[in-house]
Amino acid sequence: MKKLYLIGMGPGLPEFLTVQAIEALKRIDVFFMLEKDGRGKEELLQMRQDILHHYIGESGYRVVVANSPTRRMASGDYKEDVKVWHEEKHALFQRLIDEELEDGQNGALLLWGDPAIYDQTVSLVSDLVARSEGQLDFEIIPGITSVQMLAAQHKIPLNRIGESITITTGRHAETCDPSEIDNAVVMLDYNASFQRFRNQNMDVYWAGYLGCPDEILFSGPVDEVTDDLLRLKAETREKKGWLMDIYLLRRRRNEA
Amino acid sequence: MKKLYLIGMGPGLPEFLTVQAIEALKRIDVFFMLEKDGRGKEELLQMRQDILHHYIGESGYRVVVANSPTRRMASGDYKEDVKVWHEEKHALFQRLIDEELEDGQNGALLLWGDPAIYDQTVSLVSDLVARSEGQLDFEIIPGITSVQMLAAQHKIPLNRIGESITITTGRHAETCDPSEIDNAVVMLDYNASFQRFRNQNMDVYWAGYLGCPDEILFSGPVDEVTDDLLRLKAETREKKGWLMDIYLLRRRRNEA
Repeated sequence: MKKLYLIGMGPGLPEFLTVQAIEALKRIDVFFMLEKDGRGKEELLQMRQDILHHYIGESGYRVVVANSPTRRMASGDYKEDVKVWHEEKHALFQRLIDEELEDGQNGALLLWGDPAIYDQTVSLVSDLVARSEGQLDFEIIPGITSVQMLAAQHKIPLNRIGESITITTGRHAETCDPSEIDNAVVMLDYNASFQRFRNQNMDVYWAGYLGCPDEILFSGPVDEVTDDLLRLKAETREKKGWLMDIYLLRRRRNEA
Repeated sequence: MKKLYLIGMGPGLPEFLTVQAIEALKRIDVFFMLEKDGRGKEELLQMRQDILHHYIGESGYRVVVANSPTRRMASGDYKEDVKVWHEEKHALFQRLIDEELEDGQNGALLLWGDPAIYDQTVSLVSDLVARSEGQLDFEIIPGITSVQMLAAQHKIPLNRIGESITITTGRHAETCDPSEIDNAVVMLDYNASFQRFRNQNMDVYWAGYLGCPDEILFSGPVDEVTDDLLRLKAETREKKGWLMDIYLLRRRRNEA
């Protein structure tokens, strides 16, 4: 029997881990660190290493670093590309578990934010567990998400009274009818889709590198600040070489 | 200058706190504990006390317990009732800060889950800070939500590929068009609104007392398990005297 822990590490710094996550770290024999090339790969790997050093020192466990497959736009069909990408990830995970984890050992993936949000690892591992005929088990340990950090750092609630909260992707924000959205957190936006929400009486609450030492916060009415935000994003990306950002779009309403 | 910390305590047990939250506890002079009558008030207060004892012992701080105003359905107008309720809460907070917190001291509220989600405390305190003319400041410390615990315990992701996540209220689930919802976490549902989602090809992932020692998990196709879930809820509420629950509704789709 082998066991995999999917551990939510929160937005980056060691202080965002829960005690439950720290206790789990102590039970792990092998940490798998998967990062994509580009987008601050070295820095992101270093942040994971820092968390391990901070809480469990530098020995008593192994670290296996692997290149995470990237989604290629090969077939011209989004769904087909995603499928191929998943198969590649699936094969990688299977190989890591077969070759790098021994029977009776605990492996772990330290995942950004929370394992359940915009991360396919849960589905993937769940699938491997189902096919393992009782030889593999897994457990999920929640972590603080950038969605929560965004609200905390801007000192705003995620919803106003009675309101639903939507968490969505840049891909959706890029194509949906802007009037559909009243209150939504947009993640994974590579095309600054907040621009589409001008003339909607909306505010934007934006953050870059949330929870990291060089965090940047920015907010204001979409109609007034779009150009400034585009400039800020471009400058930041230029300076650091990569940018991880997230924002909340909120339609104004008259409240008593 | 006085400062209020709104600290997310997660779903209940001490292990769900982040290190950031624990570090904040150590800086607090006065903890304000507000609970409503009924719904397990004593047990919920005890869980907060347990967290304090666990991390900062039994001395070096004060605890002020106050009755949280409950929303009365007095005027027959939901918005008007909410407004009155907010004014009462506002007055209570103002009094607690004026009378129970000294200049230079740090006060805190230990809030269930995350302060930014379905909790009006952020707006309320933000308003008090704005009116304080620089005499009051506040900080938000995120906590693990029951939404995250729900996914972790059921070992499912909160969204499938490309899908948005909606977090909404029982009030909304009770009145919306069922076909509107594809993937939504429903909180604060007092009327078992999942019943409305029969014949929608949906699954329900339900949990009671998440993150507490007597946590219960239940899931299945809405069409098949609605009656069992209603029975389970009734029995549980009967046995314990109160029930805190949450669920995810998910429309099935054919995936490759």
